[in-house]
Amino acid sequence: MDFLSLVRKRESVRKYDSRLVDRKDIESCLEAARLSPSACNAQPWEFIIVDDREKKDRVVSAMLKGIYGMNSFIKDAPVLVVVAVDNKSWFTKLANVLRDTKMYLVDVGIACEHFILRAAELDIGTCWLGWFNEKALKKELGLPKHKRVDIVISMGYPQEADPREKIRKQTNEIRRFL
Amino acid sequence: MDFLSLVRKRESVRKYDSRLVDRKDIESCLEAARLSPSACNAQPWEFIIVDDREKKDRVVSAMLKGIYGMNSFIKDAPVLVVVAVDNKSWFTKLANVLRDTKMYLVDVGIACEHFILRAAELDIGTCWLGWFNEKALKKELGLPKHKRVDIVISMGYPQEADPREKIRKQTNEIRRFL
Repeated sequence: MDFLSLVRKRESVRKYDSRLVDRKDIESCLEAARLSPSACNAQPWEFIIVDDREKKDRVVSAMLKGIYGMNSFIKDAPVLVVVAVDNKSWFTKLANVLRDTKMYLVDVGIACEHFILRAAELDIGTCWLGWFNEKALKKELGLPKHKRVDIVISMGYPQEADPREKIRKQTNEIRRFL
Repeated sequence: MDFLSLVRKRESVRKYDSRLVDRKDIESCLEAARLSPSACNAQPWEFIIVDDREKKDRVVSAMLKGIYGMNSFIKDAPVLVVVAVDNKSWFTKLANVLRDTKMYLVDVGIACEHFILRAAELDIGTCWLGWFNEKALKKELGLPKHKRVDIVISMGYPQEADPREKIRKQTNEIRRFL
């Protein structure tokens, strides 16, 4: 499949059917993420795969705690991928100070999208999650204080096969030639 | 080309030959970026394409000013893509405060990698740039204070055709099953 078709196929899937996701397919998505570029090749990520029903229920409870109850559809996702980041790279630290930016978040965007596009190629649905109780989630997973979890990906086979039409700005709204 | 092969093909290209990049190819890369997902579908980006030699030289001078001289290879890149971001989305603002994260940077990571992977599919080389004089660059482009430029992409045909071997962590260093 050419890249633009793959990009058109990928969409946020919030309704999953009951099929489980084979670990070899998850590993293939991880391979796409592993090969991602990152600032100074820091590869600051760890992907924690939660595909055991009981453990997943506990992780979901932690994520939805307090004001973070919105994405309750994750209760029915067979897999969650928790992206834990350890921002040790001197470059990203320097960039934080001198450039007032957080390059590791760009890295997370790239690696997760690699994971997600490979999943789409395998007909597996995913959804980006950025709204969850990070503190409770880290506690549940026993992650140390210095690790961050900005993104979790939910994963499973979509109930609906046909992609929705994408609602996006027009080309002339997002680009200009100098 | 399957997605993993495309991911393996993409690499940072810092040596460009003299061929110019056709605008219809640049537009195709922009289409891949346009279709990207973003937090709350905010699409916070504007891609400013600099492919005019004289204007590009001025942009390069601004980017390399002061302590930011490191990436001088951009002098020979036929195209620069300046990714200007206007972080207006209420969600990303809320996430900044409540989650202490900057979701718009994840969005930038996704959209730029879409652009870059489509370029790789077209045999066009690119390089991520995060180290440049943003203040001087914004002044040169006349961008308002509230806009941010975290990333610039350089673009052109690579002098070397064969991709280098990627140096990455091993799979068991970056993932675990809970």
